[in-house]
Amino acid sequence: MSRFLSESKKRLVPYTPGEQPKTRKFLKLNTNESPFPPSPKAQQCAAEALGTLELYSDPTCAALVKKACALFGVEEDEILFTNGSDEILNFAFMAFCDAAHPAVFPDITYGFYPVFADVNGVPYREIPLDDNFRICVEDYTPAKGTVFIANPNAPTGTALTLSQIETILKANPDNVVVMDEAYVDFGAESAVGLIHRYDNLLVTRTFSKSRSMAGARLGFGIACKELIRDLNTIKYSTNPYNVNAVTMAAGIGALQDEAYTQKNIQTIIENRTYTVEGLQKIGFEVLPSQTNFIFAKHPGIDGEKLYAALKEKGILVRHFNKERIKAFNRITIGTKEQMQILIHTVTEILTAEGIQ
Amino acid sequence: MSRFLSESKKRLVPYTPGEQPKTRKFLKLNTNESPFPPSPKAQQCAAEALGTLELYSDPTCAALVKKACALFGVEEDEILFTNGSDEILNFAFMAFCDAAHPAVFPDITYGFYPVFADVNGVPYREIPLDDNFRICVEDYTPAKGTVFIANPNAPTGTALTLSQIETILKANPDNVVVMDEAYVDFGAESAVGLIHRYDNLLVTRTFSKSRSMAGARLGFGIACKELIRDLNTIKYSTNPYNVNAVTMAAGIGALQDEAYTQKNIQTIIENRTYTVEGLQKIGFEVLPSQTNFIFAKHPGIDGEKLYAALKEKGILVRHFNKERIKAFNRITIGTKEQMQILIHTVTEILTAEGIQ
Repeated sequence: MSRFLSESKKRLVPYTPGEQPKTRKFLKLNTNESPFPPSPKAQQCAAEALGTLELYSDPTCAALVKKACALFGVEEDEILFTNGSDEILNFAFMAFCDAAHPAVFPDITYGFYPVFADVNGVPYREIPLDDNFRICVEDYTPAKGTVFIANPNAPTGTALTLSQIETILKANPDNVVVMDEAYVDFGAESAVGLIHRYDNLLVTRTFSKSRSMAGARLGFGIACKELIRDLNTIKYSTNPYNVNAVTMAAGIGALQDEAYTQKNIQTIIENRTYTVEGLQKIGFEVLPSQTNFIFAKHPGIDGEKLYAALKEKGILVRHFNKERIKAFNRITIGTKEQMQILIHTVTEILTAEGIQ
Repeated sequence: MSRFLSESKKRLVPYTPGEQPKTRKFLKLNTNESPFPPSPKAQQCAAEALGTLELYSDPTCAALVKKACALFGVEEDEILFTNGSDEILNFAFMAFCDAAHPAVFPDITYGFYPVFADVNGVPYREIPLDDNFRICVEDYTPAKGTVFIANPNAPTGTALTLSQIETILKANPDNVVVMDEAYVDFGAESAVGLIHRYDNLLVTRTFSKSRSMAGARLGFGIACKELIRDLNTIKYSTNPYNVNAVTMAAGIGALQDEAYTQKNIQTIIENRTYTVEGLQKIGFEVLPSQTNFIFAKHPGIDGEKLYAALKEKGILVRHFNKERIKAFNRITIGTKEQMQILIHTVTEILTAEGIQ
C-alpha cells in the first residue's frame, strides 16, 4: 500500500473473484455463469444503443424500470437498478448499517458481505449455519442488526421458505432485512411479493445468472419506496450514471424475452438433477440445491485436491479455503454436454486415485 | 427518507445531474457530451462483445489496460479503469481522505466533490477562485489536505499550466493531489507525464467527452503503482466487476481509432472559437475555455432568465444557482450547425428583450 492510504482502509482484505482464465480454454464451472448466451432480443436492443453512446445514460433508468415493474408487479418508486447486484448490496451496507446497526449474516455465505462491512467501517456478526449447512431461523429472531441473507444461500445452494423469511421479517421490525436473491430463479421462492407488507424488506436481484448477462453488470433492488429513496440517495451521492446505456438496453431486451429465460432455467434445473444423480452414483455427497450450482464433497478425496486435479484437466470449479467447507467444491451447472464431461473427468480422477 | 437510514447519511444532499429530457427533442448543450457518435471501431468492438455477455467481464480489464498503457506511456500497474470517472474520484475520496486528511478543492468546481466528501464522512475545505475565476496556486502551497483540482476546471473552463501543477505537487509531498482531467483533451496540458516523478499525483480521465462514450461509462486513473494498488483495494472491496464487457470492448475500439478522436477534438476547438467570437460580438463575456464548453454571461440578461428562455426555445444549457456564478451559463460546444442555432436563438432572445 502507499503511504497515503487512509488508516481506516489499511486492514481491508478485498474480495477475491473467481478465477477468470486468460491463457487457456477451460470448461468454466467456477463463477456460476449461464452456459447460454443472452437472449437475441437483449443483444439486438444492446446493438441499437451503440450508435448513441455519446449521450449520457438515463440516470433514472426509466424505460428499464417501467419494463421491470410490469414483470415483477411493483411500482416505479419501488425498484432501483445498479451496476451489478454487488453495487446495490454495497449501497445497503452504506445506507442501513452503522455502529448501532451492525450487519448480521451466516458464517458460510457470499464472501463479499464481510468485505462490504469492512470497507464501510461497519461491525458485523456471523451466525453459524447448522450441521446440515442450513440457516436456523431461530438464530435471527431477532438478529439484532441489519440482516443479509442470500436466498438461496451460496455456496451451499439451499433456500429458506417464504414462511421462514416472514418469520425473520416479523422478528426484526426495526432492522432492514436484505434478501439477496441472485439465484432465486432456479427453484426458490422470491420475497418480492412481501415488500408491500414489510417496510424493512429489501430484495436484491441480478441479471447475471438466469438472464445470462454477467458481463453486462445489471442488478437491482426491490423494496418499499422509502427504502428505495434512501438507496437512491446513496446512488446519487456516489455514481448517478451507474448503469450504462448498452446494459440498460440489453436489460430491456432480456425482459421482453421472458420465454427464453424460463426455458434456460428449466434446462439448468434438469441438468442439475442429472449432475447430482451422476455425482451421487460415484459416491459424492451433494447438498440439496435450488440454484445453478451444486456444493459437493467426496469422502475419498480432499476438496482442494479434487479442485486441483480438475483444473489440471481443464475444468475450473470453485474451492473455498475455509475450515467448515474445505471438503467441498462449488460446481456451476452448465449444459448437459458440459456436465457429462464433468462427471466423466471426476470419475477418471477418482479411478486414478484408486478411489473408484 | 426511511426510518432505517443511518444517522451518518441523513444529511446527505446528493449530486444533481444535468437534465436528461425525455419528453421533447431538445438541442442538448447542458452536459458536455460530444456531438459526434463513438468511433465506428468502438461500436464494432462493442457489438462483437454482445454475444458472450453470459460471462463475467475481466475484473483486471487486461486487454483495455494494455491498449491504454501503449497510448499514455505508462505501465500496467499504473492505471485503473472504473465505471465512469465519478467512480475513480469516489475511490480517491475513500482511499486518501479522512478526518486527518480533509479534502481541499476550489469553491467553484465540479459540484460532486463536496458530495463525495459528505457520503464518505470526510471534512472538506473550499478555496475561493480569484475574481477572474482562476485557481490561485499560492492557495495550495500547501493545501493541508488531499487536493482535488479539475484541470481544466468546470464549469469555468480555464486550466492550470503544467508548471503550476508541479508547484502544487511539490508543496504537498505528504498529501495526494488529484488532477481531474475530464476535459484535458480540448486544449490543456496533461499531468500524466509527471506520475513517475511525484508519488502523490493521481490523474483521472474519462471516455465521456473527447471519446464520445458518456453513455458507456468508462473512466480511469493513472498514478504510481502504490496509489493504483490502494485504489484497487477499494475497487475489489466494493465492485470488482465494475467495468462491463461491452464498455471494455468499446474502450479498446476507441483507443484503436485515435485519429477519429483527434479529428473530433480539432472540430470542437474550431467550433469553440466560432462560438466565443459569435457570442462576444453580441455582448457576452466568455471565460477563456480549454474545454468542450464555455462559461458565459451577458450584462443585459440574468443567467437564469437566459437559461429559461433558451429552454423555452428548445435549447438546454446548464445554469448553476450559486451566488458567485449565477450570472453565467455553461454551454456545451456542439457541431457548427448547433452553434449557429445557439447564436441565432440567443440573438433572438436578446432582441425580444430589447437588449440587442
